[in-house]
Amino acid sequence: MTDQDTYTIGVDFGTLSGRAVVVRTRDGAELGSAEHPYAHAVMDRNLTASPARTELPPEWALQVPGDYVEVLRTAVPRAVEAAGIDPAQVVGIATDFTACTMIPVTTDGTPLCELEQFADRPHAYVKLWKHHAAQPHADRINEIARERGEAWLPRYGGLISSEWQFAKGLQLFEEDREIYDAMDRWVEAADWIVWQLGGSYARNACTVGYKGIHQDGAHPDEDFLTALNPDFGGFVRDKLDAPIAQLGDAVGHLTAEAAAWTGLPEGIAVAAGNVDAHVTLPAANAVGNGQMTLIMGTSTCHVVTSDQLHEVPGMCGVVDGGVIAGTYGYEAGQSGVGDIFGWFVSTGVPAEYTAEAERRGISTHAYLTELAERQPIGGHGLVALDWHNGNRSVLVDTELSGVILGQTLATRPEDIYRALLESTAFGTRTIIEAFTSSGVPITELVVAGGLLKNAFLMQMYADVTGLPLSTITSTQGPAVGSAIHAAVAAGVYPDVRAAAAAMGHRVVGAYQPNAAATAAYDRLFAEYTRLHDYFGRGENDVMKRLKTIRREAWEASNAVEAEAAPALTVPEDLS
Amino acid sequence: MTDQDTYTIGVDFGTLSGRAVVVRTRDGAELGSAEHPYAHAVMDRNLTASPARTELPPEWALQVPGDYVEVLRTAVPRAVEAAGIDPAQVVGIATDFTACTMIPVTTDGTPLCELEQFADRPHAYVKLWKHHAAQPHADRINEIARERGEAWLPRYGGLISSEWQFAKGLQLFEEDREIYDAMDRWVEAADWIVWQLGGSYARNACTVGYKGIHQDGAHPDEDFLTALNPDFGGFVRDKLDAPIAQLGDAVGHLTAEAAAWTGLPEGIAVAAGNVDAHVTLPAANAVGNGQMTLIMGTSTCHVVTSDQLHEVPGMCGVVDGGVIAGTYGYEAGQSGVGDIFGWFVSTGVPAEYTAEAERRGISTHAYLTELAERQPIGGHGLVALDWHNGNRSVLVDTELSGVILGQTLATRPEDIYRALLESTAFGTRTIIEAFTSSGVPITELVVAGGLLKNAFLMQMYADVTGLPLSTITSTQGPAVGSAIHAAVAAGVYPDVRAAAAAMGHRVVGAYQPNAAATAAYDRLFAEYTRLHDYFGRGENDVMKRLKTIRREAWEASNAVEAEAAPALTVPEDLS
Repeated sequence: MTDQDTYTIGVDFGTLSGRAVVVRTRDGAELGSAEHPYAHAVMDRNLTASPARTELPPEWALQVPGDYVEVLRTAVPRAVEAAGIDPAQVVGIATDFTACTMIPVTTDGTPLCELEQFADRPHAYVKLWKHHAAQPHADRINEIARERGEAWLPRYGGLISSEWQFAKGLQLFEEDREIYDAMDRWVEAADWIVWQLGGSYARNACTVGYKGIHQDGAHPDEDFLTALNPDFGGFVRDKLDAPIAQLGDAVGHLTAEAAAWTGLPEGIAVAAGNVDAHVTLPAANAVGNGQMTLIMGTSTCHVVTSDQLHEVPGMCGVVDGGVIAGTYGYEAGQSGVGDIFGWFVSTGVPAEYTAEAERRGISTHAYLTELAERQPIGGHGLVALDWHNGNRSVLVDTELSGVILGQTLATRPEDIYRALLESTAFGTRTIIEAFTSSGVPITELVVAGGLLKNAFLMQMYADVTGLPLSTITSTQGPAVGSAIHAAVAAGVYPDVRAAAAAMGHRVVGAYQPNAAATAAYDRLFAEYTRLHDYFGRGENDVMKRLKTIRREAWEASNAVEAEAAPALTVPEDLS
Repeated sequence: MTDQDTYTIGVDFGTLSGRAVVVRTRDGAELGSAEHPYAHAVMDRNLTASPARTELPPEWALQVPGDYVEVLRTAVPRAVEAAGIDPAQVVGIATDFTACTMIPVTTDGTPLCELEQFADRPHAYVKLWKHHAAQPHADRINEIARERGEAWLPRYGGLISSEWQFAKGLQLFEEDREIYDAMDRWVEAADWIVWQLGGSYARNACTVGYKGIHQDGAHPDEDFLTALNPDFGGFVRDKLDAPIAQLGDAVGHLTAEAAAWTGLPEGIAVAAGNVDAHVTLPAANAVGNGQMTLIMGTSTCHVVTSDQLHEVPGMCGVVDGGVIAGTYGYEAGQSGVGDIFGWFVSTGVPAEYTAEAERRGISTHAYLTELAERQPIGGHGLVALDWHNGNRSVLVDTELSGVILGQTLATRPEDIYRALLESTAFGTRTIIEAFTSSGVPITELVVAGGLLKNAFLMQMYADVTGLPLSTITSTQGPAVGSAIHAAVAAGVYPDVRAAAAAMGHRVVGAYQPNAAATAAYDRLFAEYTRLHDYFGRGENDVMKRLKTIRREAWEASNAVEAEAAPALTVPEDLS
């Protein structure tokens, strides 16, 4: 450390907590960090923040904005203290957030839920990304957009999510008009927290593009909005419109109030908001063409930049400046990855396995991996489809479901576990091939997220895709990525690319594809692809019919049970 | 009981033990029974009956003929004692056996393994039904029969099993010529035990037809045998040929020696041999047209009689007099049923389930059934293919494998369990439809075997097939069926049909199909059928390719490992 060293703060706002990290701008060294959980966590059963504790309908997920501010007041000073640096040497702060997480606020940014008269109104609170109650509204948006041939629809792989700004906004409009009317702005939490820090409101280029349907300089027009609902025509003009900030821009400077919260110098740069997945690329210094970063956890988010604009079938979105200003940021996704492995471990593995793992002091995942990796490729005789949580890319179909094929009486849990791991690798390869064949060639995989700890899985991804696979060095990729943006906003570096080159790190080519393994996986991938297309592209819509049958079965049985007692236990995802 | 009452003995020779039952001829009442396990059980690793304990190759399964005689010496007198009857009132004895279980013997019936010079020779012993080492020989038989268009092949659904007389005989011929040459007769254990009891050798119409490829009065001709192997042309003439006895015929009368073993009167009728599955129909008094008996255990055997000869695609065999003299006996099969449920329970159910079942003192099967039956039909959103042990009827393809489709992150073990139960019911419905559409209409299901205890499964079979389902009354169907045949051989009844009417019992229509349930299952069955045909009839041979890939993967990995150490653990079914 030299006397000249400067530092930035990155704060990553996750689903249950916020985490602050202090990073040296010279080289990206992480000097200290701290985490603070949200006092109200996720409100998905009751509105616990209000005295009435109003019960919430299914699929709701709310948060309390004050919990985010608490992270600034606790985690930031603790991280600075842990780093042992002089706060005066901190030159900037940046944040990233879950998305799309939306807050209805007044003109000055006060959340409506903080107004006494609205404290008992669920719609006055933050709608967390995984608030899924706007699905009917999303369905309508998609249907009408398809009918009208809206040009922006292909930029999102043909499907708008119920999680996004328009679906959540339309739900609010139709379900609590009073709150809607009282709301001056419909704000991404990613931008709201920046507003709290820097005193200025701007919409960051990432969420406005990926979640706000902003393409080629415009949102969906009033005509379209009116087609959704005759009185909804003013949504963009009245509730959304605001300046757009490029990623790495300074949106404001730390206010006296925020300086008091954080213990940081008043007036330092506050960078534009950002999203946890997208901000990770600079942290891995993976911001070039063809470097696809996979944030692998319960699901996988694939992000890659390119100089060129292409419409990749089944991607989640392409946004000009959505990851790095001046390039196109592409996002794709697999809606179930770690979640599928977790589902199998908790529901499909017998006592002798879990007991043996416990005896050896390792996780069941680790034990199954150890057994699975002893097999030659194809040794289990299985192929699976990784659609237990639907398929985002490239089929964009939530009604698809999982398959395991090839079981015999000799099939063991580790065989199925391995087939499930492989199916997610095949899912990623399918996405890569869609990009490559659409003019966005992929040449390197860069993995961040919890699953990179599984070396067997990493080697499998390299082998299945035939690509070198790099791993991010930091265990706090999003927070470090934010700190990199803060350094740019503070003027330490001219742009994010330069900052990433100095401050972002990955182990380049940590896993190299083995040609023989790739050839062996090719045969399994061919089977995966054939089943993928057969079940996923309309040749046999059995999965959709089974879901329809399932819904109708439970509806009919509940209708019957309503006349008698006791009620059947309806599965959680249908209740 | 009156002074005039007479009794017969039925002895059922199973895979691991023999069971004798004493039955009153007037009404079929079971008065006493006893069981005796075979001292050598199944020899599948080492020839434990010989001092050398020679190691056996994979897929071998041998037995010791003396163990069968021990059943006559122990279980029969103990059953008579348990019944509390006067042995003098026993008028006949009959037996049924596993099939195809084959013994090489000398002219007087002495098994070659009992000759000192052959005691160490595996091929001198009994080849139990599940000795599967003759698969290459069966493959050759099938291939050449297909090439030559042998007329008998369609009578077996187009496929001869490795378990049958010709495959096992050809293996013996090619692998131990000295034993083959020393053998005077190649005898079904079903007929050998009758020979021991009654002093006469005749081949029963059941095994000679179903297992011995005897159709329209003849075996495959010398031309065909020579095509298998130039020196094998004399197989039928030299080793098989012998008189054929109809079921219910008296083949001999109890010899003095056998009377001494059993404590029964010398000279009483000894009936023709029979097979466990087929002999069960009279025990349930289910010997009429359209009454399909399902013997449901690890696998299911479907047997039905008809006045007419039809070739049903995918059946196991049709034999004139194979079940009831004077009618055609049809057999079909599902190669995995209870085995699939057992596989799932032992490999796919987590500790919390097995612990809860244990806490409540019920089996995991019972616990899963209890959870599964709370769902409405289709409530799990799944469909499975019941091919974990291949498919016998109607696809006749051992290379097929299992499928589960429709999983989500909310899928629970009881959902999969229920889908597996349903898949076997759909498999049975597929067989029924093949019979009905081939001119052998099925109007009633009659269930025997261990699975009839599961009331939920029985109701499901009735609902899925839309047929009334009756259940056999006796828990010892095969032994009682044998006792019925003994009564006919003794002249108590003119024929098996008459004896069955008096002595066989079932609960007629114990389960009635529910029309609404049948309609609901129809929708799932339509999905099953579509997948059945897609994967089973050549549209997508992914299962076969996966099995090929699997075999090649293990072969290659063993080749690699042979040069290094330690060896990989090769799955049991490949070792």
